Amino acid sequence: MNSTSQIFPQFQLELPQWIPDFLQQQPATFPTHEARMELVTTLSKLNIEQGTGGPFGAGIFRADTYQLVAPGVNLVMSSGSSITHAEIVAIMMAQQMLGSHDLGAAGFPPHELVTSCEPCAMCLGATCWSGVRHLVCGARGCDAEAIGFDEGPKPQDWRTALEQRGITVIVDIGRQKAAQVLKNYVEQNGEVYNSRQGTSE
Amino acid sequence: MNSTSQIFPQFQLELPQWIPDFLQQQPATFPTHEARMELVTTLSKLNIEQGTGGPFGAGIFRADTYQLVAPGVNLVMSSGSSITHAEIVAIMMAQQMLGSHDLGAAGFPPHELVTSCEPCAMCLGATCWSGVRHLVCGARGCDAEAIGFDEGPKPQDWRTALEQRGITVIVDIGRQKAAQVLKNYVEQNGEVYNSRQGTSE
Repeated sequence: MNSTSQIFPQFQLELPQWIPDFLQQQPATFPTHEARMELVTTLSKLNIEQGTGGPFGAGIFRADTYQLVAPGVNLVMSSGSSITHAEIVAIMMAQQMLGSHDLGAAGFPPHELVTSCEPCAMCLGATCWSGVRHLVCGARGCDAEAIGFDEGPKPQDWRTALEQRGITVIVDIGRQKAAQVLKNYVEQNGEVYNSRQGTSE
Repeated sequence: MNSTSQIFPQFQLELPQWIPDFLQQQPATFPTHEARMELVTTLSKLNIEQGTGGPFGAGIFRADTYQLVAPGVNLVMSSGSSITHAEIVAIMMAQQMLGSHDLGAAGFPPHELVTSCEPCAMCLGATCWSGVRHLVCGARGCDAEAIGFDEGPKPQDWRTALEQRGITVIVDIGRQKAAQVLKNYVEQNGEVYNSRQGTSE
């Protein structure tokens, strides 16, 4: 048996239990940008308080009925996976629930990704491939950078790049409140992981 | 019970069974860039032949012993998740096997990501956050674009952006062979998914 004959583990990801409990207390629909942002910003805040991850929340919503399809929170440290940013978790969950890799597939209503902070480079690409038709952002990338998170290699004109792929972009919805969650996180000595920022250590 | 009180499913991902079977026939180490690229290009080819996904393969290797830590293949259509590009799958698996969200954490050997095709925008960001110290690419992004895949919003100077984060980049290792797998895929009418490329449909 050589070194590569091992059996590879199954990757498993589930939302923290506090999320369905919390959502049970929420309304059935979130008719405004502000209401949807309020929900995902609260998720980002609760994610810190519950100790399940970094200060980021997201959600995939139906853009016709404004129902939440799937929430997401940053689970990087609790899941042991650098991939599990809030937006990625929301996209994975929504696609699993709908049984398709394409949330924009024929027969589906349009979907919107709402995120408490502008997507990093990885989540920007993931947004393009997810099939969502709308992106709504709270805090700006520079708000995350201000507390030490790296947004990664994003083109200056990333909003145009999304629009060119048929995805509308709205920024600064509830920015102040979403950015405050980031500030609180670092003030409470929350770990800013993966922030090598140009050093090799 | 309102619309958001549902229980969210667990996201599960496992490698196709042909991968451990195939790896059992492979050497214990892959000492050259070319040998490592040969392995991941073969994975990309077998992924088409076995019908488990798109024409992309990747692997995380130890950069000291040149052992394979975890392979990855594109599982977008078979897993129903647009996130599961070959590089993402390899990163997820390697981090799960090592029990850390950071392949560059103290106490680990340096790790290298080898991919049969330059990373798209999402996988470029994921590379930054993974903790790998080296990236080795086969086919170019333009080779994937030539058959209709979209590379997404990547900055022109993406290689510099990685180098600035302490990640070395080598391109064009076995490019011709890796690009041929892409050409064969589309000639055999393989599905080029998520290629809206500027249209809203």
